[in-house]
Amino acid sequence: MSDKTSNSPDFAKGDGLLPAIAQDAETGDVLMMAYMNEESYAETLATGRAVYYSRSRNKLWRKGEESGNVQEVRGIYLDCDADTILLKVHQIGGAACHTGFRSCFYRQITPEGMKEVGERVFDPAQVYKK
Amino acid sequence: MSDKTSNSPDFAKGDGLLPAIAQDAETGDVLMMAYMNEESYAETLATGRAVYYSRSRNKLWRKGEESGNVQEVRGIYLDCDADTILLKVHQIGGAACHTGFRSCFYRQITPEGMKEVGERVFDPAQVYKK
Repeated sequence: MSDKTSNSPDFAKGDGLLPAIAQDAETGDVLMMAYMNEESYAETLATGRAVYYSRSRNKLWRKGEESGNVQEVRGIYLDCDADTILLKVHQIGGAACHTGFRSCFYRQITPEGMKEVGERVFDPAQVYKK
Repeated sequence: MSDKTSNSPDFAKGDGLLPAIAQDAETGDVLMMAYMNEESYAETLATGRAVYYSRSRNKLWRKGEESGNVQEVRGIYLDCDADTILLKVHQIGGAACHTGFRSCFYRQITPEGMKEVGERVFDPAQVYKK
């Protein structure tokens, strides 16, 4: 009744990496999807800030560590199969996407093709300086 | 400027399977996350109903084909990397989860452990008859 998988994400399922969806706690907008491993999940719980695992860089990704646009975690939810995580967050800086859009899902697929529908909050060139 | 990846999901990235998030178009609730391959994506576009790919059954999963709880697609969005899909849907029957909950994310992780926070809409035993 209190085995590990029933009380926490089942990281064995995704070869150690599970999808984590970040949703704006205030507006309900889906902001982004990234991955977490057990270490990033534990750090998220401990710090109250979203920490992912970057598959391209193969290391912990403390969201906002470079841009300052951290995500303060308001709630953590687990799906029925315990293999997907949902975070409700307060997005500091207003934008979750590295392109400067509020949400990474700023493009809609329509019969006429792809349309930009999101709101750009910052200019990436100003935020990510070399 | 109009290459394939810029106008549609990049199925090459996820070995042919990309995560697809279903969000309630009316309430903004995140209902579930599943996977799509190119065929299921094309059928979703063509029919206006969410079609996923079941990794456990290795076949197209026409959401609701057994329970009747189909998802009518209201909008399709693509993230910045073109490797995650967001569907805004109208969930027929009110529940997306096979457990009968409105959302698959019906459990919250709290300092006191896991808490059920979702709303159960139907009794699975009545819906999935052998």
